[in-house]
This record gives sequence, C-alpha cells and structure tokens, in this order.
Amino acid sequence: MSVQATVPTDNSPYAHLPSVNRTLFEAKANKGLTFDQIAQAIGKNEVWVAAAFYAQAKFTNEDLNKVSELLGIPAAQAIGEIGEHWVPYRGLGPTPPTDPLIYRLYEGVLVYGNSIKAVIHEKFGDGIMSMIDCYVSVEKKPDPKGDRVVLTFDGKFLPYAKW
Amino acid sequence: MSVQATVPTDNSPYAHLPSVNRTLFEAKANKGLTFDQIAQAIGKNEVWVAAAFYAQAKFTNEDLNKVSELLGIPAAQAIGEIGEHWVPYRGLGPTPPTDPLIYRLYEGVLVYGNSIKAVIHEKFGDGIMSMIDCYVSVEKKPDPKGDRVVLTFDGKFLPYAKW
Amino acid sequence: MSVQATVPTDNSPYAHLPSVNRTLFEAKANKGLTFDQIAQAIGKNEVWVAAAFYAQAKFTNEDLNKVSELLGIPAAQAIGEIGEHWVPYRGLGPTPPTDPLIYRLYEGVLVYGNSIKAVIHEKFGDGIMSMIDCYVSVEKKPDPKGDRVVLTFDGKFLPYAKW
Amino acid sequence: MSVQATVPTDNSPYAHLPSVNRTLFEAKANKGLTFDQIAQAIGKNEVWVAAAFYAQAKFTNEDLNKVSELLGIPAAQAIGEIGEHWVPYRGLGPTPPTDPLIYRLYEGVLVYGNSIKAVIHEKFGDGIMSMIDCYVSVEKKPDPKGDRVVLTFDGKFLPYAKW
Amino acid sequence: MSVQATVPTDNSPYAHLPSVNRTLFEAKANKGLTFDQIAQAIGKNEVWVAAAFYAQAKFTNEDLNKVSELLGIPAAQAIGEIGEHWVPYRGLGPTPPTDPLIYRLYEGVLVYGNSIKAVIHEKFGDGIMSMIDCYVSVEKKPDPKGDRVVLTFDGKFLPYAKW
Amino acid sequence: MSVQATVPTDNSPYAHLPSVNRTLFEAKANKGLTFDQIAQAIGKNEVWVAAAFYAQAKFTNEDLNKVSELLGIPAAQAIGEIGEHWVPYRGLGPTPPTDPLIYRLYEGVLVYGNSIKAVIHEKFGDGIMSMIDCYVSVEKKPDPKGDRVVLTFDGKFLPYAKW
Amino acid sequence: MSVQATVPTDNSPYAHLPSVNRTLFEAKANKGLTFDQIAQAIGKNEVWVAAAFYAQAKFTNEDLNKVSELLGIPAAQAIGEIGEHWVPYRGLGPTPPTDPLIYRLYEGVLVYGNSIKAVIHEKFGDGIMSMIDCYVSVEKKPDPKGDRVVLTFDGKFLPYAKW
Amino acid sequence: MSVQATVPTDNSPYAHLPSVNRTLFEAKANKGLTFDQIAQAIGKNEVWVAAAFYAQAKFTNEDLNKVSELLGIPAAQAIGEIGEHWVPYRGLGPTPPTDPLIYRLYEGVLVYGNSIKAVIHEKFGDGIMSMIDCYVSVEKKPDPKGDRVVLTFDGKFLPYAKW
Amino acid sequence: MSVQATVPTDNSPYAHLPSVNRTLFEAKANKGLTFDQIAQAIGKNEVWVAAAFYAQAKFTNEDLNKVSELLGIPAAQAIGEIGEHWVPYRGLGPTPPTDPLIYRLYEGVLVYGNSIKAVIHEKFGDGIMSMIDCYVSVEKKPDPKGDRVVLTFDGKFLPYAKW
Amino acid sequence: MSVQATVPTDNSPYAHLPSVNRTLFEAKANKGLTFDQIAQAIGKNEVWVAAAFYAQAKFTNEDLNKVSELLGIPAAQAIGEIGEHWVPYRGLGPTPPTDPLIYRLYEGVLVYGNSIKAVIHEKFGDGIMSMIDCYVSVEKKPDPKGDRVVLTFDGKFLPYAKW
Repeated sequence: MSVQATVPTDNSPYAHLPSVNRTLFEAKANKGLTFDQIAQAIGKNEVWVAAAFYAQAKFTNEDLNKVSELLGIPAAQAIGEIGEHWVPYRGLGPTPPTDPLIYRLYEGVLVYGNSIKAVIHEKFGDGIMSMIDCYVSVEKKPDPKGDRVVLTFDGKFLPYAKW
Repeated sequence: MSVQATVPTDNSPYAHLPSVNRTLFEAKANKGLTFDQIAQAIGKNEVWVAAAFYAQAKFTNEDLNKVSELLGIPAAQAIGEIGEHWVPYRGLGPTPPTDPLIYRLYEGVLVYGNSIKAVIHEKFGDGIMSMIDCYVSVEKKPDPKGDRVVLTFDGKFLPYAKW
Repeated sequence: MSVQATVPTDNSPYAHLPSVNRTLFEAKANKGLTFDQIAQAIGKNEVWVAAAFYAQAKFTNEDLNKVSELLGIPAAQAIGEIGEHWVPYRGLGPTPPTDPLIYRLYEGVLVYGNSIKAVIHEKFGDGIMSMIDCYVSVEKKPDPKGDRVVLTFDGKFLPYAKW
Repeated sequence: MSVQATVPTDNSPYAHLPSVNRTLFEAKANKGLTFDQIAQAIGKNEVWVAAAFYAQAKFTNEDLNKVSELLGIPAAQAIGEIGEHWVPYRGLGPTPPTDPLIYRLYEGVLVYGNSIKAVIHEKFGDGIMSMIDCYVSVEKKPDPKGDRVVLTFDGKFLPYAKW
Repeated sequence: MSVQATVPTDNSPYAHLPSVNRTLFEAKANKGLTFDQIAQAIGKNEVWVAAAFYAQAKFTNEDLNKVSELLGIPAAQAIGEIGEHWVPYRGLGPTPPTDPLIYRLYEGVLVYGNSIKAVIHEKFGDGIMSMIDCYVSVEKKPDPKGDRVVLTFDGKFLPYAKW
Repeated sequence: MSVQATVPTDNSPYAHLPSVNRTLFEAKANKGLTFDQIAQAIGKNEVWVAAAFYAQAKFTNEDLNKVSELLGIPAAQAIGEIGEHWVPYRGLGPTPPTDPLIYRLYEGVLVYGNSIKAVIHEKFGDGIMSMIDCYVSVEKKPDPKGDRVVLTFDGKFLPYAKW
Repeated sequence: MSVQATVPTDNSPYAHLPSVNRTLFEAKANKGLTFDQIAQAIGKNEVWVAAAFYAQAKFTNEDLNKVSELLGIPAAQAIGEIGEHWVPYRGLGPTPPTDPLIYRLYEGVLVYGNSIKAVIHEKFGDGIMSMIDCYVSVEKKPDPKGDRVVLTFDGKFLPYAKW
Repeated sequence: MSVQATVPTDNSPYAHLPSVNRTLFEAKANKGLTFDQIAQAIGKNEVWVAAAFYAQAKFTNEDLNKVSELLGIPAAQAIGEIGEHWVPYRGLGPTPPTDPLIYRLYEGVLVYGNSIKAVIHEKFGDGIMSMIDCYVSVEKKPDPKGDRVVLTFDGKFLPYAKW
Repeated sequence: MSVQATVPTDNSPYAHLPSVNRTLFEAKANKGLTFDQIAQAIGKNEVWVAAAFYAQAKFTNEDLNKVSELLGIPAAQAIGEIGEHWVPYRGLGPTPPTDPLIYRLYEGVLVYGNSIKAVIHEKFGDGIMSMIDCYVSVEKKPDPKGDRVVLTFDGKFLPYAKW
Repeated sequence: MSVQATVPTDNSPYAHLPSVNRTLFEAKANKGLTFDQIAQAIGKNEVWVAAAFYAQAKFTNEDLNKVSELLGIPAAQAIGEIGEHWVPYRGLGPTPPTDPLIYRLYEGVLVYGNSIKAVIHEKFGDGIMSMIDCYVSVEKKPDPKGDRVVLTFDGKFLPYAKW
C-alpha cells in the first residue's frame, strides 16, 4: 500500500498556515523524519524547528535551503512564500486553547502564574522573563511510575526601566 | 519609622483571596521572610508555597500549624478558613492576563503551544503532560549578558485511554 | 486549639451564595459531617445535597428543618433566606471554568460532546438527554493502578416535538 | 431511488474535520453501520469510535486499515491524512455549545460542577478526575415513564502533587 | 417558629436591584401573596408586575402607593427610590443566561429565531415584532402527560421605514 | 424577464446550511410557495417547517420525499445530505443576534426572563419549560392601531428531579 | 487606461454580502454615480440606498428594476438573489467596530447613551426611540473652522406597554 | 407624605459614578428640575448637562458652583470630588448595552454604520466625524401618528492625515 | 534558483486584504524594495505607505499610478480594486493581538494608558490626542547596549466640545 | 470655601487601586502639584510617576519617602502598602478601553500595528520592541492649527532567540 501524507486543510491548526508549511509537514511525514533529525541537520533545537513549521518562528533562507534539500522539496517555493521578505504573525489557535495538551500549559499559567511571578520578583526584583530571548525545550525523563515530560523555558530576566 | 505591611484589599489578585491569605502575606512581609525560607521550614518548594499563599494549592493542617508558628499568627484562624474542610477553587486573575510577566507565560502557550505539543507527540505518543502531577520550579541562572530565569514544568505524561 | 470554621467571603464560589449557605458550610465543617451523612439524614443523594449547599438545588422547608437541626443552626434563618419563596438562579462560577477539576468536566463536553450526541442519536433518535430530570452520582472505584471516579448522569431522553 | 450519503461541508461540526473524516461518515451512512458495529469490528467502545470519527481521538494505522476495509474505502487515503504522523487538535464546536443536546452536558457542568467537585474532594481528597485516562459510555435504560440515557465518565483520580 | 423572609443580597439577580426592590420581595414573601394577587390589586398582569419587582418595568407613583399599602411597607421609601424620577436600566443577568429556565428561552431564540423571522416576513413583510409594545403572559395548561407552560408574546408589528 | 431564485452563499444565515437546504429555499422561491403551504402538504406547522429549512429541525425521509416532490427537486439529493443518517447541530447565527427582529426576541429574554421564571415558579414550582417538547407558533392578529404578532411557546413543564 | 472596478471579496464588509450586492457596488463605481444620484432615481434618501447596497435594507422588485436599469446590470440577477423572497439578516461587521469612523458612532453610544436616554425619559416618559420607524440622514454643514457632519436619527417614540 | 429621593447604589449605571454624582441626581429629583432647566442656568445644552451628571463630561469649577447653588448642595463636596483635578474615565455601562433604549442606538450603528460611512466618504472624502468636537441634541417632534425623537450628532469632519 | 515571492493567502493578516494588496506585497518583495524606498518615490513616510499596503490607509489614484509603475504591476488593477471608489474598513487582526510585537504596543496601552491620559489632561486639559490627524514614525536609534526603536505618535490635541 | 480633594472610590480606574494610591492622588490635588513637579523632586519623568500613582510602576522605598514628604502624608502608610514587599499586578482598565483618549491609543494599534511591525522588521529584523526596557514621554508641541501631543515610546529592540 502506497501512502502519501496529506495535511488536512480545514483542520486546526493547519488551516491557518502558509501553504508551503503544509508541504513541509507532508514531506516530513513522507520522509519519516522527526523534528529532532531536521533540527540536527540545520544545527537547531527541535522545539524551535517545530515552531518554524507552525509559522511561529522564521527560517533564514539558508535554513530553508537545507530543510528543503533534506525533505526533497523545491527550495524556491519555500523561499518564495516564507523567505526573508515574509513577516510572520505569531500566535496560533483559539484562546483559551481547546486542545487538552495545550490547555494544560494554559492552566499552568492560570494556577501558577501569580506564584511564578512572586518568586521571580523575590529573586530578581521587578521585571519579567523574556519570551523573545527564551529557549524552550522538551525532554523525556524516564520514571518507573510513568515517564515525565520536562518542559523548560530559559528566558532572560528584563528589569522594568525607570525613567 | 515603624512600618506595618498591609495587603491592598481592592487590588489584584489579593482582592479574591480568603482573608487569612492576606494575613499570611502581611505576616510574611513583616517577618521579612522569602518563600524559600518558608518552604524550607515546611519541607516544600518555594513555588508550591507561593501557590498556597495565593490559594492555588492547599496546605495540610500540619503545614498551617508550622507556617502560622513561623509567621507568628494564630493557627486557629488559618485552619478555620483554609484548613482541611476548605475546597480551593483554582485559577486566579483575568484571562488573558494583563500583567506583563504573566502575559509572557501565556504568550509562550500562544506561540510555542503547538510546537511543544508536536514534540511531545513525537517523543511520547498521543497524550498530555499532567499539570496536576507536575512540579514547577524557578531558578536564577547567572549570565554575563543578563541573568536568566529558568522555569521548569516537570509533569507526568498521560497517554489517552482507548476503550 | 479551638478552631471555628469560616467560609471565605471573597473567595469563589462562596462569594455569590446567599449568606445562609455560608452558614451551612461552616456548620457542616464544625460538625465534621460529610455530604453523604447529611444526605442520609434527609433521604437524598450526596451530590444533590451538595448542589443545594451551593444554591443550585432547592431544599423544601421540611428539608431545611431537618438539615438545620442536624447542623445545629436556626431553621428560621435558613427558611427565611432560601425557603419556599426563594427562586434559585442556577449556574455558578466563571465560564469556561478555571478550576482544573471543573475544567476537566467541561473538557469532556468539548472533546466528547459530538460523540456522545451521535451515539444518543443512533440509539434514541433526534432528541436530548434531560439535565432537569437527571440524577448525578459520584462513586469511588478502587483500582490497583489508582482509584477511579465514576461519574454518572442518568437523565430522561426527550425526543424533539414535531408539530 | 439510489441515495448516496453526502456530508454537508459548510455545516457544523463537519466543516472543521479532515476531509477523510467526512468520507468516513459518508461510507458509514452508505453501509448502514452503527458506531457500535464499527466498534466491535475493531475491539473498541462506540463512544470512542465516534470520537475518532469526529477527529477527537486517534486511530492507529491498524485501526484505520480495519475501519477502511469494513467501510470499503481506500486505507491509504485515511492513513495519509489521519495516520500516525497526524497530530490531532481536540476540542470541537462553539463554546458555549449552541446545540441543545451538547448544551445540556455543559449545563451539567455549570449547575453541578461545584457539587461534583465537593463530593470528589470529600471522597478522594484534593485532586481531579482525569479526562485523559477516562472511559465514556452511553447506555439506554428502558423506563416506563420514558427511556433514560445513562452517561458515565470513569476517570482515574489524580491527586495534586506537592513538591 | 417565626420566619422573616430575607432576600440574599449577594445572590443573582437580587444583588443588582435597587434596595427597595429587595424590600418588595421580602414583604411579598411575608404576606404570602402571589404576583397575580398583587397584579389584580393594581389592575395589571402578573408578568408585568414581576418585571416591575425585578426593576425591568416602571411603576407609576400611584402603583407604588397601592403596592406599598398592600404589602405594608412605607410608600415614601419606594417612591423615593424608584418613583417618577428614576430611570430604569433594563436587561438583567448574565448573557448567555446560566439559569436553565432562562436559558431555555434563550435557546428558543438560537434554534427558532430564524424560523420565527421567516414566518413573520412571509405574513407581515419586512419588519419586526415590537418588544416595547408587547404583552407577555404565562398560562398553565393542564395535560395528562404533564402540565404545559403557555408563554405568549403579543407584540405590534413594525414595518421598516423607507425614506 | 425570467428570474431564477438564488440563495446568496456568503450571506447569513444561509452560509452555514447544508447545501441542499439552499436548494430547498431556492425551489420554494421559484414555486412561490409559503411555509404554510408546504407545512399543510406534509401535515406540519409552518414554524416547524421553517426550522427544518434552516437545518434546525429534522425531516424524516418520508417528509423529504414529500417536500422534494412538492418543490420539484430530486429526493435522493435531500435524503443523501440531510436524511436519517444526518445529525443536526442546532443553534444558528451570532449571539447576541444582530438582526433587529431576532434581537427583539433575545431582548425579551433579557428583560422578561426573570419575571417569566418567577411566575412559572409560582404556578408550577421549581422546574423549567421544555424547549424540546415545545410547539412554537406565529399568528397574525389584526388590530386597527397596527397588526400584532402573537408568538406562542407551548412547552411541557419539567420539575427538577430530586434524588 | 481602462479601469474596471472590482469589489475585493475577502475584505470587510464586502465579504459577507450577497454576490449581487458586490455587482451593484462595481456597477455604481463604473458608472461614477453617487448614492444620492441613485436615490433620486428611485425616490429615496441616499443613506437608505446605501443601506440597501450593504444588504441592510430591502429593495422592492420595482426598486431593483430601476436600479438595475440605471446601473446597466441584468435585473433578473438582482431579483433572483435579493428580491421579494430574500429575508435580509441585518447587522454587519465586527462589534465593537474596528473602523475609526464607525467606532466614533459606537463611542457616541458608550459616552452619551445614558444622557440621551435620560433626556428622552424626561421629555417623553418611559419608552424608546424606534430604530425601525426611523429616518437617518447625513448632511454636510460648511464651517470655516472645518466642515461638519450633521447626522440625524428621526425615530418614532414608543412608550412601554403596561398590561 | 414626605418623599426624599434616593439613588439606588447597586443599580446600573448609578453604581459606578462618583458618590457626589449620586447626590446631584438626588438633589435634582428633590428640586423637581429638568436637565433643561439646569442647563439654562449654566448656559449649556441639556444633553451635555446630563452627560456631566453621568460623569461623562466635565464641569468646570464655576459650573459646579452654579449647579450646587441651584440644587442646594455644598459646592465644596462637588469640587472636592469631580473638580478640576478629577480625570474622568468615559464610557459607561455594559457592551453591547442591554437597555432597550440604548440598544436601539447601538443597533443604529450595527445596521446603518457602513451606510453612514459610505455617504460621509462620498461627501467629504476619507476621514471621520469627530465625537469629541461634536454636539448632541434631542428634540421632540410632534407627529399625529406618534411623536418623534430627533437625535442629532453635529460633529466636525476630520480628514485622515497623510504623512 | 529563480524565486518568485508569494503571499500566503490563508495566513494572517494577508488573508483579509483586497487581492491587489497581496500583489503589491509580492511585487515589492520581487523588486527588493523597502517601504522607505517606495515612500520616497511618492513623497510619503514609510509607516504610512506600509499602512496603505495593509489596506489601512488609502492611496490616491495618482499614488497608485506611481506605485504600480515602480513595482511593475498594471495600475488599472490597483485602481480598479482600491482606487477612489473604494471605502477602506480599517482595523486589522485579532484583538487582543496575539503577535508579540503588536501585543507589546497593546500592552503599552494597558499599562501606560491611564498615565499618558493623566499627563495629557494636566498639560492640555480635558480632551484627546487625535489618531486621525496623527503622524506615526519608526526610527532606529543605535545604542551600545542594543539598538532602540523610537516610535512616535504626533497627533493633534482635540478638546472636548461643550455645548 | 475650603475644598478637600476626594478620589471617588467607585469610579474607574480609582476603584481598583491600593487605598494608599487614592491617598496619593488626593494629596497631589490638595497640594496643587503636577506630575512633572513630583517627578523632578525624585528625579524621574512625569509619565513614569503617573504610572506609579496608578499602581503600574513600582516606587522604591526611597521614592516613597520623598514623595510622602513632598505630599505631606505619612511614609509608613505608603511603604506598608506599596513598599518593597508589594508585587504590582499591571494592566488597568477594561479592554478594549471605553475612554476616548485611551481608545485612540488602542486604535493606533488596531490600525497601524501591522505597519509599525513591518517597518521594524525591515529596519531591525525579526524581533520586537521591548515595552519593559522602554521610556514613554508626552510632549506638547505648539502649532498654530492646534497644539499637538507628541507621544514617544523609546524601547529596546529584542531579536528573537534561535536555539
């Protein structure tokens, strides 16, 4: 049986991506590659690469050349649609999120947001944790009672300017 | 000058807490203790203790005895209001959050939610990361270009039941 | 140490109840009774009694007499505030709910609502399951991998009128 | 008269499904099969199968092979669109739901959510009922005053971590 | 046992009424009068009187004198608060309504709104049914299969002006 | 001039109907039939038939055969799209409604909802008026000061279960 | 250079109009006619004609014949789509409006709504100003400090029914 | 009977006014003055004065002196609360408005907003009608078929800057 | 490699623009021109030109001729779609904005809105800063600690009319 | 006449401030000081000081000592309520803002947000303008056609991390 991956065009969140991103997802599935494998090919982390696939991060043209070659798709199409000239509009999906996995992250903000803030305030002073100068990673931690997901945000502290 | 800490009762998020939690915040400020110091006194992590101060986690009566003693407030008041019989209603503050620090966490969900999900799906299969069986920590990572906040969620992976 | 239970008046969902309901919660805590024990005293199910405590179901005056006697509070206060003349306005708390336990029930609707509907349609035809002529129960099912909650809605099927 | 089932592509909730799911619904109608019959063919419960038809649960490729064979549609199309590589985004339809049947379930959360929570808290302690490790079933209970729908959620209790 | 009716001041929808309206509800309960009995005393329909109790219709000072006398409360208080000078702001309660009875009326608009509109369009032309020049009544219709509520809106047709 | 009715596909509420429902509206216009005429042909009320045209009620296959014949369209198309296998998702249009006619009905709920509820409570006890076992009718009442619309909801009273 | 007017089909508010209304706008632009010129041709006011172009008012078939002739488009198309059988659904665009001009009107309601209401109450009694039996006009008033827009709503006062 | 006007403090929109504004309303009622009479005393229009009573416009201290004297209240209280130093936050009441009179104005924006905009565009070019440099008036126009409200907004046209 | 720029038609905010605006973006990318270069060619500021590209400002036909010539696209298409007859509907994208850059601007309003208002009130009196007669500019300010964006709004002060 | 400034406690945005902030506003009014004068006394900019008055920026204890001395209020009260231990929750007022001045700023984001973003993207690359490391100023620019407000945001550019 010959299976050709198709990204469902009416289904969230694919429906709101540039069309070449759907091509990227289809080619990734057909090649059987993981985000980690693609990330290693271009010297990046898997979460960042996934973000770029979902149009939430921006590949350089050089990245697009490498990724296109790896996935066997024409680089010109990718560069034409999401190359240097493209201005990504970030923030994807309904709010509050309806998907249970993404909702759990949102619930973490609802339940622990004030606590995280109070501890940051205590340790760093009045400011924020940058979500722009921030690295996000997802690791698998084996555990006999059930494996655990370790999700880390490593972001620069930015104190409030006083002027 | 003798200063007595007062928690502003009309101001977010204090306005929606049980009154004894405002007493806890005031006593903590007057004693000059950090969440970490309180946490060590009862054998817990500082983020969890902060969550309990914001009525987002539930102290045992034993915890309340220790915390009350440490802060110099009557334990009976605390146990009477937020002791075993109390059923906490979690989730505090406006959504989307308007505070910049808490908004950044929310933005992390908006921008990286699908990517985190896709990587978890690739590494663990179809399921979620528990926000109930989850440890949250905030660490300070010194960095010459500016200190960084390392925020970690360590939650159990839960695969979807099929039945 | 003499502890007197207090219901926090600014905290959800207590803040929106008639004041006598707060008295009921306080008396229940001080007597150390469960909803099941109160339910047995008046010949009802524990979920229904809890609903009446949260002002989501309506006690008869006779119920209020029995409950007041059991809890040691004046029946006249209860009947004066939530007796026969009182018209309950049901539906309590924010929507979508922010509390994780209640959100999970809501997520059940988001994720399985169409499926439950399709199966009811297949088995009963075009109609609904009544939430008015409906019994709700919560049972504990021991399980070596972790106890389970069995939540049951037993509601009358109502076919759509055609006229 | 030869009737060929068509799923209306602009109509809720079909409009937001992957296209192959519309094919599944059409083939099911043309074969005259119930969800229960399909479920038995793949060793699952009918509500779960309905959830998978509505793109709210994920078939394995093996499931898709069996279902495709049963329904007489090409498995390659199904696997290409919603096979292993597909990451489902769950949560379907408007909130609050406008459909009366689904609204009744939502109303159950609005009216009985706090009560269910209080009883779970009393019987299990501070935690939640999992909607991930949860089985949902719909049974028909004959009743002379009108048949009843018995809807059961059987979910694992998860206590809040303290750390 | 001497019972004195009290209107719960934090509970919907009483919390948003002028205080004298709470006095009216309490006096009505203490006198044991129905809306219909009050309505007959002032020559009005019971639904209209209930609307005035909920601050959704406006009594004349003469009405207030009669109602105050009937209920045994000082007319000066009522006239001082909701007399001629008072400008009622109509529209009470959350939207969509969370109370099941009121939600059902709202559901009638969601489900049958377009149909009612199409039939009015067919019978009267392009225009609306006035909700200002409109009489609302609620009647009980005995029925062996269960009594029925007959709710009638009798409103003037207003054709769209063309100019 | 030969005019062929066309239902505008981008325009509310037609945009969200199954395509065959647009065909029904077009055929009805071309035949010059009223809902009442169609209703008489199948032994139903005009409001119910309009609801079925707007995909808010469900025709039986027998109904669809009769309506198709009357309107001169192929029954197989109608049965294929909205026949027995189709599960209608009710609730159509924006909320709150923006159309003035439908808004007036909604305003009736906003302004008179609590009053209607209080009178039903007084006459029937604690329960609701069913919107499922409910007949809706629209009559024209001639009046020298301007014709009136008499809109009636005749729904079964359902008392709250106590269990 | 030969320019043919095109109405942008994805752009607000054109995207939600019946397609023939887009044709009307294009023909008007190509003919270089103002709303006032069209209005004079059919004996109406320019604001009303603009409302009909935006599908917010309903032309008679006779109006459509005249307008079609004036604009040089086939009347059959217009009558087929928005003729007598068409039931307009009014209320166009997002709320609150995002367009600055329309937002200013909305701001007038936010800021002066209560004041306008209080003055109407004082001059007319308890009732409303009809938006159905209402004429709307826009006039240009030259002014040395900058021309002024005079926007007038002339609507019938409707007193609240008492029954 | 001695009646003293009281402004209901929980009732919209009075609940959100500075307390001295409630005093102004009470004094106006007790003096039996209309907005027009107050307006003449300070050389303003009645709608503007009503706006100032609802805290939507700002009296000068001189205005406050005159109004206080006319109404017999201490000017110092008024100047202390809403004098020169006070920064009014305009925009009062729920959106969309639930009160029928105010909703009608809002409906005017929903239904005629695009048309008013298109006519202004045609007559003035690309710009807006100012709601800041704008006079609002309400006049009573007698009419044998029922008196009419003539509501006029007279606002400066502001063309869009191009830079 | 020959790359042809394509604007992604499902991706925000391009999805809601007139189609010729997508052509403008594509031509700009293919020509490798900046907004500043285009702005200089027509004697405007780059932010204003970008606004016109996003359909938030309106080119004159003369502007469109120049821009079309510069970008090598047919002027007739541009004038046909967004020429003089076109009435732009401004306000683009979700609110609150989900894109981090645009959210930061919105956060500026949330956090500093009242302060900016209070200072304007102190310096100018009661009024607003026009967003219509307003110039917006973006400058790059080199800084050894990281370059800075200087965003300036230069808008006319408009005092509130009193009438 | 002796006038004592009072901040209206039910009125936006004062209602949500810590109580000592209301004291600050009252003392400022009674002393007749501008934000600029207070700012100079503590070596800050007036917009920042206004932000601190609205609880949107955080004074150091030293600032509070200086401000309290200048305004003649006890420093202990200010430090007790909004001193070092206080964790400000920023973001004040309804969204979208209803006040015309603040709305205009919000409108700037709606209308020019994408354009500002595109120009920043062109000049700086993919990143944001910080609203944390940002100075905000308001200047009065005299102009014969009407004075202008020059509002400047000077924020650090932050490029997106790639990892």
